[in-house]
Amino acid sequence: MRYSRMLIPTVKEVPADAEIPSHRLMIRAGLIRKLASGTYTYLPLGFRCLNKVINIVREEMNAAGAQEILMPAVQPIELWQKTGRDVDYGRTMATFTDRHDRVNVLAPTAEEVVTSVAAGEINSYKQLPINIYQISFKFRDEFRPRFGVLRSREFIMKDSYSFHADDKSLDETYKVMYDTYCRIFKRCGLDYVIVEAESGEMGGSGSHQFTIPCENGEDVIVYTEDSSYASNIEKAAVDPLPKQKPLSDPPAAENIHTPKTGSIDAVCNFLKTKPQDMIKTLIYSANDQSLIALVRGDHDVNEEKLRVIAGSSVELAEEADITNLTGAAVGFAGPVGLIDKVDAVIIDHAVAAMAIGITGANKTDYHIKNVVPGRDFPLEGPDVQIADIRCAVEGDTYQGKKLLFKKGIEVGQVFKLGTKYTTKLGAKFLDENGTEKICTMDGYGRGVNRIVASAIEAGCDKDGIIWPVSIAPFEVIITPVSQTEAIDKAAEKIHDQLTNAGIECLWDDRDVRGGVKFKDADLLGIPVRITIGKKSIAEGNVEIKLRAESDSSKVAVDQAAEKVTAIVNSLKEKLKP
Amino acid sequence: MRYSRMLIPTVKEVPADAEIPSHRLMIRAGLIRKLASGTYTYLPLGFRCLNKVINIVREEMNAAGAQEILMPAVQPIELWQKTGRDVDYGRTMATFTDRHDRVNVLAPTAEEVVTSVAAGEINSYKQLPINIYQISFKFRDEFRPRFGVLRSREFIMKDSYSFHADDKSLDETYKVMYDTYCRIFKRCGLDYVIVEAESGEMGGSGSHQFTIPCENGEDVIVYTEDSSYASNIEKAAVDPLPKQKPLSDPPAAENIHTPKTGSIDAVCNFLKTKPQDMIKTLIYSANDQSLIALVRGDHDVNEEKLRVIAGSSVELAEEADITNLTGAAVGFAGPVGLIDKVDAVIIDHAVAAMAIGITGANKTDYHIKNVVPGRDFPLEGPDVQIADIRCAVEGDTYQGKKLLFKKGIEVGQVFKLGTKYTTKLGAKFLDENGTEKICTMDGYGRGVNRIVASAIEAGCDKDGIIWPVSIAPFEVIITPVSQTEAIDKAAEKIHDQLTNAGIECLWDDRDVRGGVKFKDADLLGIPVRITIGKKSIAEGNVEIKLRAESDSSKVAVDQAAEKVTAIVNSLKEKLKP
Repeated sequence: MRYSRMLIPTVKEVPADAEIPSHRLMIRAGLIRKLASGTYTYLPLGFRCLNKVINIVREEMNAAGAQEILMPAVQPIELWQKTGRDVDYGRTMATFTDRHDRVNVLAPTAEEVVTSVAAGEINSYKQLPINIYQISFKFRDEFRPRFGVLRSREFIMKDSYSFHADDKSLDETYKVMYDTYCRIFKRCGLDYVIVEAESGEMGGSGSHQFTIPCENGEDVIVYTEDSSYASNIEKAAVDPLPKQKPLSDPPAAENIHTPKTGSIDAVCNFLKTKPQDMIKTLIYSANDQSLIALVRGDHDVNEEKLRVIAGSSVELAEEADITNLTGAAVGFAGPVGLIDKVDAVIIDHAVAAMAIGITGANKTDYHIKNVVPGRDFPLEGPDVQIADIRCAVEGDTYQGKKLLFKKGIEVGQVFKLGTKYTTKLGAKFLDENGTEKICTMDGYGRGVNRIVASAIEAGCDKDGIIWPVSIAPFEVIITPVSQTEAIDKAAEKIHDQLTNAGIECLWDDRDVRGGVKFKDADLLGIPVRITIGKKSIAEGNVEIKLRAESDSSKVAVDQAAEKVTAIVNSLKEKLKP
Repeated sequence: MRYSRMLIPTVKEVPADAEIPSHRLMIRAGLIRKLASGTYTYLPLGFRCLNKVINIVREEMNAAGAQEILMPAVQPIELWQKTGRDVDYGRTMATFTDRHDRVNVLAPTAEEVVTSVAAGEINSYKQLPINIYQISFKFRDEFRPRFGVLRSREFIMKDSYSFHADDKSLDETYKVMYDTYCRIFKRCGLDYVIVEAESGEMGGSGSHQFTIPCENGEDVIVYTEDSSYASNIEKAAVDPLPKQKPLSDPPAAENIHTPKTGSIDAVCNFLKTKPQDMIKTLIYSANDQSLIALVRGDHDVNEEKLRVIAGSSVELAEEADITNLTGAAVGFAGPVGLIDKVDAVIIDHAVAAMAIGITGANKTDYHIKNVVPGRDFPLEGPDVQIADIRCAVEGDTYQGKKLLFKKGIEVGQVFKLGTKYTTKLGAKFLDENGTEKICTMDGYGRGVNRIVASAIEAGCDKDGIIWPVSIAPFEVIITPVSQTEAIDKAAEKIHDQLTNAGIECLWDDRDVRGGVKFKDADLLGIPVRITIGKKSIAEGNVEIKLRAESDSSKVAVDQAAEKVTAIVNSLKEKLKP
């Protein structure tokens, strides 16, 4: 393919909102262009990468016995109301009213539709198990889209769903999909980590998350030194901290005036104390119930853990409700006296382990010092429980082993959904004895665009992208350094030979300086570069250089195509699962 | 592939809304299932067909030098406001307000986005021409979705766009795309007709439409006996009818009481006259202007023709406006006395040719008889024009040649868009002399789903579908009539041999009666069937039958795979462009 005939608009400058390397490089290399907040056009080179990922996913899914289908992206809201997920997704779900006054959803995922298809078409155990998938348009109205295609509003997802007669069959397919995901990431050239995960809005009983470790990832994975345990931060369990030695004669609790100190930092500063001596009080609502969560001042509430305990509808209370409940401005809530006014109290282990602490006084500009857990507020009772509700932090252990932290990008997740959807949408079958039963279900999601971006996050340098050969827009780039007849002829010949050998070859035939071509070749990140210069061609040679390596080697013009084909094939060989 | 492992839910009954064969058969053969009005899930076999069409389109577009991209389906309305097409599409365009109060469009097509991409990335004549395309989700909120995937709300379209420095280049690419479309339809096994077409909401200066003739098509194509002219009904020109001989002493116009006769049929019935003696008066609005159109009672106004004359915003006036203007109920409008009250009058040639006629009296329950065009209402004047504004009908001629009519399904259209979009969205370039110019533009659309459905409309019988081999879900079906070890073994062997030879083979391994399998094989329409029965296997033979033919032939088990491979290849050969 001739470079001059393709739309490859490389640029030097990137917009200020491009904060991370993959976002910057996808724009600089002319792979994508922003249309609006969180929506991107894939230009020809970007689409080539995307389509290669799609093809790998499709091949592996088919090989695993999954069947491809295509469901509508515009879906009736009634289906989502049946599972209650219209509420779970909230404003992240885009809806519109059509000309016949029906409310439609732009699909953020498709459990409801696929389960209704299963409910309609599956009626016998003989049809089970069945594993169906689609690769299609999805939309989530993210509050703050960012990082280019990593957190976009519109994206392409491979979502698959399997239906089963029993849990044994479900576990088998879960394992097949788990292995298939491993094969896909390997073929895409990605080093991945698999961790336990919360299933979040999907529900269900078990989940694993596939993460690509990289510096700029939004996700945090947590693992023990010996790798015996790994989880995402939302799920990562921690050992309770050791109980602090009780004071022999603790002073009485005392209100203190702390003007304008509505944050932990501000009050620590004012009182010359440390966050770990504070008790942070957060007020949540869950349906019509109110709930307070207590964590130490240096800890954060882990809302996923909280939801596992208190239900999926838990969310931070509105400011007005907080003020109403505490009688104080936001930032001055505390457990003393408040516990009787709420429906439930969940206290983190680390708070229960404190000997004494400082907390809000439920009075604007006041805190209480010398608060002793168990003395000044209860640690037990019908509405009180102590649990692990905080995010793991440096220094924590799990099962006695030190926890380590790594950033990464989540690129896929597998879920054991069980009967959450099948019960609500009536996906039943008759078993061998003619008894009606509910199907069990797995779900498997994978962001296709995210694979492209995370491959860049995991493979780039200051000059540009370093693609794995399997998803690179081209496998080889030919870079003639100047324009002479001999160079043109050699370039065309090698280009044609490679193309005939099935190698995807981009020939930089532009009338620009060699320096510009080198810079663009590095930026585009094509795995193998063939450089043809005046001096080398006079010697009958061309130069071969891998994007991932700094050294180059010379090879005779006549042997270039054969040699490069062998290099490309050996790069491909390394990515075989 | 084993039939028992696939989701192929064939059914006997179809919903009442499935009016035409392709809709009925796609449901009966388990290719699609309706989710909501105008939205369908493609089940595994349906998706296989769809994906084959997509692959053919992609291969041919790439071979023609077009570059694939992917634009967002969710688009900011501001872009559509720049071209005014938010108004042109009206309620057919679905919009939603996102969480940041921005209004978004669900793309019915993508001229605006692609032109804004071109405006951003093209700056030199060296980059032109460029031809880019996508195959993606589209949505149009059709008032009355029907005929299954033929007029659905959500669909997949291949839309391509080319940008040019001048009209010569535009014409060249238009021709390349025209030829590419021919190749695609040929490869999909479709007999197509190419006709001139109006460009409708797309605008521009020229257009051709690709239509598959079939009994249940919604589109009508019109052509002369000698095929020197062919057009779709929206554009088909007609010769003016010969002027009727003027009456020597026509009686004066006279009001007559015609109670409850608000339609042409009713008034003809009441007055014992014929529709061709009536003058039909239709009232339109175009922006803030009012317009009346006169056609003969037996003719229909062709709104596409009317829009070419009076502008794209022409639409039928609201009932209240009509009553207001005429002072009468709808159904009693007439030109006499009304012409002075409106901004423009367009009179069809056939009305101007009438000697005398009957028309509405602009008074409820009254008509006027003995109306003489030119005497009782003007045929000329600053606001009056005579033009061809009606649909062609049986008996019409064009350039003296008799017009013939054929129904069909429109499956693709190519448009010369010119500078309509590039001017409004600023797609400019610098020419060889450094002068800034506006790009010219072509557009090419093709409904992928419609190709699948129209292939069925063009190829089916009472028993089911008859697929062209290139887009069939499988190429071969193996139908063992009973279950014996010998039959199973032969089936498996032939299945494996065919699969290894690259033939897509479905093996009906279900434990059901032979009759059921035959019925399903005919319904699914797979081109070649291999039947294995007790008697034939005892003779060492199997039976080969083509879906499109009634005869079958016998072949030795050992030669079956080879023979069938040859048959499949010869079927494929016939579809080569």
